[in-house]
Amino acid sequence: MTLLLTNALLLPCTADMPVIQNGWVQVDGETIMATGVGVPPNIPGAETIDFGGDVLMPGMVNPHCHMAMTFFRGLGEDVDDRLFRYMLPLERKFVTPQAVRAGSAHAALEMIMGGVTTVADMYYYETEVAAVVDEAGMRGVLGQTLADFDPPDHKSFDEGFALVDRLVAAYGGHPRITPSIAPHAPYSTGIEVMRRVARFAEEHPGVPVQMHVAETDQEVEWARTNFGCTPVEAVEKAGLLRKGLICAHCMHVSEGDIAKMAHAGVCVAHNARSNGKAGRGIAPVEAMRRAGIPVGIATDGAMSGNTLDLFAQFGPVSMFQKILGHSRKPMQAVEVIRMATAEGAKVLGLDARIGSLEAGKQADLIRIDLSAPRCQPVYDIYSTLVFTAMAGDVRDTMVAGRWLMRDREVLTLEREKVMRDALQVAATFKAEMARIDAGT
Amino acid sequence: MTLLLTNALLLPCTADMPVIQNGWVQVDGETIMATGVGVPPNIPGAETIDFGGDVLMPGMVNPHCHMAMTFFRGLGEDVDDRLFRYMLPLERKFVTPQAVRAGSAHAALEMIMGGVTTVADMYYYETEVAAVVDEAGMRGVLGQTLADFDPPDHKSFDEGFALVDRLVAAYGGHPRITPSIAPHAPYSTGIEVMRRVARFAEEHPGVPVQMHVAETDQEVEWARTNFGCTPVEAVEKAGLLRKGLICAHCMHVSEGDIAKMAHAGVCVAHNARSNGKAGRGIAPVEAMRRAGIPVGIATDGAMSGNTLDLFAQFGPVSMFQKILGHSRKPMQAVEVIRMATAEGAKVLGLDARIGSLEAGKQADLIRIDLSAPRCQPVYDIYSTLVFTAMAGDVRDTMVAGRWLMRDREVLTLEREKVMRDALQVAATFKAEMARIDAGT
Repeated sequence: MTLLLTNALLLPCTADMPVIQNGWVQVDGETIMATGVGVPPNIPGAETIDFGGDVLMPGMVNPHCHMAMTFFRGLGEDVDDRLFRYMLPLERKFVTPQAVRAGSAHAALEMIMGGVTTVADMYYYETEVAAVVDEAGMRGVLGQTLADFDPPDHKSFDEGFALVDRLVAAYGGHPRITPSIAPHAPYSTGIEVMRRVARFAEEHPGVPVQMHVAETDQEVEWARTNFGCTPVEAVEKAGLLRKGLICAHCMHVSEGDIAKMAHAGVCVAHNARSNGKAGRGIAPVEAMRRAGIPVGIATDGAMSGNTLDLFAQFGPVSMFQKILGHSRKPMQAVEVIRMATAEGAKVLGLDARIGSLEAGKQADLIRIDLSAPRCQPVYDIYSTLVFTAMAGDVRDTMVAGRWLMRDREVLTLEREKVMRDALQVAATFKAEMARIDAGT
Repeated sequence: MTLLLTNALLLPCTADMPVIQNGWVQVDGETIMATGVGVPPNIPGAETIDFGGDVLMPGMVNPHCHMAMTFFRGLGEDVDDRLFRYMLPLERKFVTPQAVRAGSAHAALEMIMGGVTTVADMYYYETEVAAVVDEAGMRGVLGQTLADFDPPDHKSFDEGFALVDRLVAAYGGHPRITPSIAPHAPYSTGIEVMRRVARFAEEHPGVPVQMHVAETDQEVEWARTNFGCTPVEAVEKAGLLRKGLICAHCMHVSEGDIAKMAHAGVCVAHNARSNGKAGRGIAPVEAMRRAGIPVGIATDGAMSGNTLDLFAQFGPVSMFQKILGHSRKPMQAVEVIRMATAEGAKVLGLDARIGSLEAGKQADLIRIDLSAPRCQPVYDIYSTLVFTAMAGDVRDTMVAGRWLMRDREVLTLEREKVMRDALQVAATFKAEMARIDAGT
């Protein structure tokens, strides 16, 4: 089955980030066979879709998320002790495999509608997340979390590693799902467990490691007090600063840390809105990229960043670096889109398969309608995408040659059922919060 | 004619910012007659509209804009010398009354679609802007700009003041339009002209003054070199730091400046995205509000902030103050919505008439549909509005009892004609830019 997508404003997101008016893409099955400009080839039996000048670009890559946490979106936003007052008790009591499925399906729905085709996730009951991502037709690097704070699905690290083994057994070799191991953070796993994760990674070269690194002041204090070093150096001490490590956040990294990270070949998932909302400062994204570290644009979970599309991140990603540099020059719009596509794919180790539209790559792509008055005129398409386009402007979403959304209708998930299930979890949370607030 | 808007999630934005489930609002003609909860009064002949649980809140107030500059949206975004290379030449050559009408109509269309009902504008040929705002049915505080850099519509300040007089004569006493005088900035008018503006303001107590204040490093340098003081002190020296002055930006204000501004009773329009994109740092909004200065949330022109709805500002407004305070606590969501409504109205001196939904005020209101998966669940409606809602979620917009938009269709402007005219101006600009780039 051949599909010809024609008459598009084609942004293939290849190395020099070209802008191709009247471009076309030929998709055979799940693969891109060719791209071009002007009149497409005449292929008997091919289906042709005229994009009418709409943007055609790679699906976006979200390299750090906690999908199921849609059920915490906006909960206790301005309550000082929301983590201990609401979230941890709710998580321990109500985060079941069913709840994880409901929250993850809600997240998949939102991401497909916002143009995200690949997500890196870390949460509990991760085989449930994988089942949802598979059903939704998305691509994912899905990490079973390991942590010492009595999380819902494991009472010990041994139990946690068993969950990782189960995930790898179930999804190793899947065409769209890459199983992953996700030690929560240096301070919540400790040096010994990080060492064990490093050994696991050595033995499983196809299993990426995801971890929160250099995110909080407390983590910096933990590394300093216990080891007289930085969080990145603690990770290095454990032998975990190695190729295949995806570091989320990296707010508190020194010049020395950046050099070590670049040398080790680790990658970074930048969560601008989540970091900004927490008042944690600004991650040195320009400095990390200058050092050669690939950096992707991530949403974090909805409890932190609220939305799961990348458009809502673009403004902050760009503005934060300009503020840090006290100049208009840092983080130009074209670089933001590169990070959201090709560079994000590299962060996840998937750049041979996705991240750009070129022959041989998987057909993961989106169509964006810029006819809203807000999006016009267009002088520079990258500026338009970064500073005016929104999740709702995405019209169609395809992964591996399969349409997940057409004309704003998601085809792989039953929207009404997904929302009903999600709101049922939220109703349970609200009832429990009322009990907590009443002190009963 | 009585209209009953019922079954709404009513946010009246009165002093204690209540959240009213199943609320109603009664509108008679252009005025709100009553608000309440539950079953509305039985009024024979009244038209009832069931909001189905949608948000009903005051229309938003955008206290600083250059509407016509939609024609510059995204132009030369990452070109270093875009101001001198493109914008000033284009402005001098092509900014005619017709172009101002086209750009302003485009802006009005976008603002109505994004839930902005009142705008403060400063640009050239401001009587043309007023004609557009009037036709569109919006409310406006519309300022004729005065500047020394050879702007398109006046060659001297005398000519500029004559344009102000014409604007005041044409629109003084208009029910929705407040004529205003807009000295561009301290450095581009100078102390003597600011003195003349202060005298004008003294003689025209109903005409607010709008000015860019403490916006750029160069302005700080100008004040220091010429007068050994801050920009705010230069304004004070000219006698212009007085009630009725609306200061846009205020990035570079000291504690002493803030005390003087509070004492004088001036107000501030905060332009988070515009400031962030320029890398100019973060305006001390929390400090100004703590001192008692009313601060509204503004978009600036589309050449600087790109979009003209307030939703796109909310995240940056909140995050910037949290980053400045290195804490989650500053600028809570409810305060952001207060600034976008009641406080914005106060900034423009219109708080007796608009900014909240209560008996006796003008019926300027919007309906917001939160059914998108991205907007659910709702634990705290203010968090939802600040961190997940977007311009496209606004469904209906009313000003002075008249629907400007229903079900996303703008009723007061011909969308296709407006966009055709706007894109024609952009085409002229693109041709000239090509000539400039070719050096011919």
